[in-house]
Amino acid sequence: MTATPPLLPELAALTGDDSMLTRRFGKEVTNYFAGSRLNRYSFLRSDAVFLNKAATDPSARFVALKDLSPLVVDKRKLALLTFEDVKPLISEPFTRPDKERIKSHDSTGAPSILIVFLGTIDGDDVTFETSEHGDVKGQPFFAIDITTRGQEKDAVESWLKIQEEKGLRIVTDTRSLSLHSEAAAMFAQARSIIDWNTRHGFCAGCGNPNLSVEAGYKRVCPPTDLKGGSEAIDLPDCPTRHGVSNVCFPRTDPTMIAAIVSADGQRMLLGRQTRFPPNWYSALAGFLEPGESVEEAVRREVWEEAGVRVGRVVVHSTQPWPYPSSLMIGAIAQALPGDAENINLNDKELESAKWFTIEEVREALARTPGTMSAPPPNDYKEGDLRVPPPQAIANRLMTAVVEGYLSGNPKI
Amino acid sequence: MTATPPLLPELAALTGDDSMLTRRFGKEVTNYFAGSRLNRYSFLRSDAVFLNKAATDPSARFVALKDLSPLVVDKRKLALLTFEDVKPLISEPFTRPDKERIKSHDSTGAPSILIVFLGTIDGDDVTFETSEHGDVKGQPFFAIDITTRGQEKDAVESWLKIQEEKGLRIVTDTRSLSLHSEAAAMFAQARSIIDWNTRHGFCAGCGNPNLSVEAGYKRVCPPTDLKGGSEAIDLPDCPTRHGVSNVCFPRTDPTMIAAIVSADGQRMLLGRQTRFPPNWYSALAGFLEPGESVEEAVRREVWEEAGVRVGRVVVHSTQPWPYPSSLMIGAIAQALPGDAENINLNDKELESAKWFTIEEVREALARTPGTMSAPPPNDYKEGDLRVPPPQAIANRLMTAVVEGYLSGNPKI
Repeated sequence: MTATPPLLPELAALTGDDSMLTRRFGKEVTNYFAGSRLNRYSFLRSDAVFLNKAATDPSARFVALKDLSPLVVDKRKLALLTFEDVKPLISEPFTRPDKERIKSHDSTGAPSILIVFLGTIDGDDVTFETSEHGDVKGQPFFAIDITTRGQEKDAVESWLKIQEEKGLRIVTDTRSLSLHSEAAAMFAQARSIIDWNTRHGFCAGCGNPNLSVEAGYKRVCPPTDLKGGSEAIDLPDCPTRHGVSNVCFPRTDPTMIAAIVSADGQRMLLGRQTRFPPNWYSALAGFLEPGESVEEAVRREVWEEAGVRVGRVVVHSTQPWPYPSSLMIGAIAQALPGDAENINLNDKELESAKWFTIEEVREALARTPGTMSAPPPNDYKEGDLRVPPPQAIANRLMTAVVEGYLSGNPKI
Repeated sequence: MTATPPLLPELAALTGDDSMLTRRFGKEVTNYFAGSRLNRYSFLRSDAVFLNKAATDPSARFVALKDLSPLVVDKRKLALLTFEDVKPLISEPFTRPDKERIKSHDSTGAPSILIVFLGTIDGDDVTFETSEHGDVKGQPFFAIDITTRGQEKDAVESWLKIQEEKGLRIVTDTRSLSLHSEAAAMFAQARSIIDWNTRHGFCAGCGNPNLSVEAGYKRVCPPTDLKGGSEAIDLPDCPTRHGVSNVCFPRTDPTMIAAIVSADGQRMLLGRQTRFPPNWYSALAGFLEPGESVEEAVRREVWEEAGVRVGRVVVHSTQPWPYPSSLMIGAIAQALPGDAENINLNDKELESAKWFTIEEVREALARTPGTMSAPPPNDYKEGDLRVPPPQAIANRLMTAVVEGYLSGNPKI
């Protein structure tokens, strides 16, 4: 038996000075939820032998999510569990290759606890042999979904009690967290993948129950089903089995978000949704649609939401946003002059859209709270503009404008 | 009865000089499949009264796709049909609001022909009243899916014969098309939305048949089903009915594609897949995953596919790619110096990855053919590098590098 290593030994590394952990190149902006050091090794997700060795190694660490909320030490630190810690829940991880699991697919079976391979932090301390890709050196990280379901319920609940006795807890208001950047990135990856698996239990092509494979990153529509018996029953043909895939991949939904500057450069267009706190405004945002470029999506959404016609659009930075799985594509864009700047809530989605002076935005940015759900600071005067905190890319875009992003320096 | 308007009157506009149709702002690059003039009016997709008036108006035009291949006049021109042309197939479009259709959902019913609202080209010629959004002025465009299925088969096939007698035809090798930019954008939008509807006939959350609503842009999991009878039967609870949605939206899959320049700026990294024509190389590409920024995805994919470590990454432009529904995010990136430039096919996905001199790439670009499937030109010497044509964003990225993109001018 492996000796239990000290609880959470590497939290120091994960909660250290952010500037040490973020590798910047050129003028790259690394937004919150990005900046992971994990090497995802996507090509090892089908290597059950590697995954089993990695998951059961004393160096392995697991983050645990219940109903998509993380198990944490405190608001800044994710709990990083060892295999010994999680063994009561996943005693034999990845012992059967996906091919075998697909062959013996039984849709009547109890769902097993989902284990997601997050990747490794490269380093020389631990070496793992792989089936086809040589040696891999680094500390492996996984996520497990401890949402209580069906027959696992009691086991998970008593396990969770033990963790709580150690001082760990589940935080459901995830927007109150202020995880350090790498822990936030790890949480984002885990949350999005677990959420996608949870909400895609059936094949969209034929309606049959599907199966999570490749350590959480694919769901396959198996051609047979034991249905509680010992003989595999052939399933009707599924259209997804023709052409490239009978699998489906995690969704990543590209979403544009833009700070719109007036034609004269003196004002910024912001909007508010009914659900925002009072006086809170943010950058306009919306999902991209098939068949449009980022620039076209920005122009469409800004016109649909606020009636303003936009000219040039510059991509500033991007941000993974794990609610549930967006890629925020942050842009700074400029309105066309004259009537094109008139506000009209065409699609009636926003409660209000307004032009603010750059100075108003600058002041609002200076008094943003630390997290998405924090109250305004003491010096806040009722009625003043409020904007999202730095974790949100909206804040970074507004900040870039206020700091002169559009005034002519090379952007790379 | 409305008089039949002349066939395809506005093809002139859709096949005119590309430079007239593409609105450029700043240094924006409009890639092939982008550059649509259509105003999508996404907020009118639930307005059945508007949609019915728009679809049955003499100014309305329809593009038709069979098994995702378009009905065309020739390789440059999409067929733009009138309502009179398509009336035999969709006699009463959008006559029932989505709410009613959901209430009387019958999963045993024959699938009706999908009609997708593409948008309008703004203009003063035609005015449509809407239910809640005032007057809309412009010429409406739709797409219909004429893939032959079930009981519609005979009707669709004889209708298609009539179109073929008019000289129109379905082109299945869509990569041989050289549609003008606006027609290409219209095709991209239509193809992606039809494809998504075709492959998502069942709710991923519960496995029951779902229903296309909002003129093709949503699929809803109805709470009841007539199942061939006259009484609506309550369906078991579906997890998608909790929280924000019991609907699902079209996928748009963000995909990074990057021209990688060596640290000294003198060479470019390209890769080839086994399925490529001989000597053909292209920029490296791969799907983004949840929880990573564009820059991170570029670094991960380039390292996984070619072993090269990338430093700075600059987004150059984006391209909607309708096979089936990607958002290509085109980047120009630079390798870190020294050993970081060594090639190693880590994930074994590529057949080969190589550094080419900028001069080799320049020469290959000069002799690219006009379409994805065209043979090399006469002056091609066997063994010389071949690269994709200008329709592919890979070509635009390589061209930008060859023309000095990284050499220091402001990129906006």
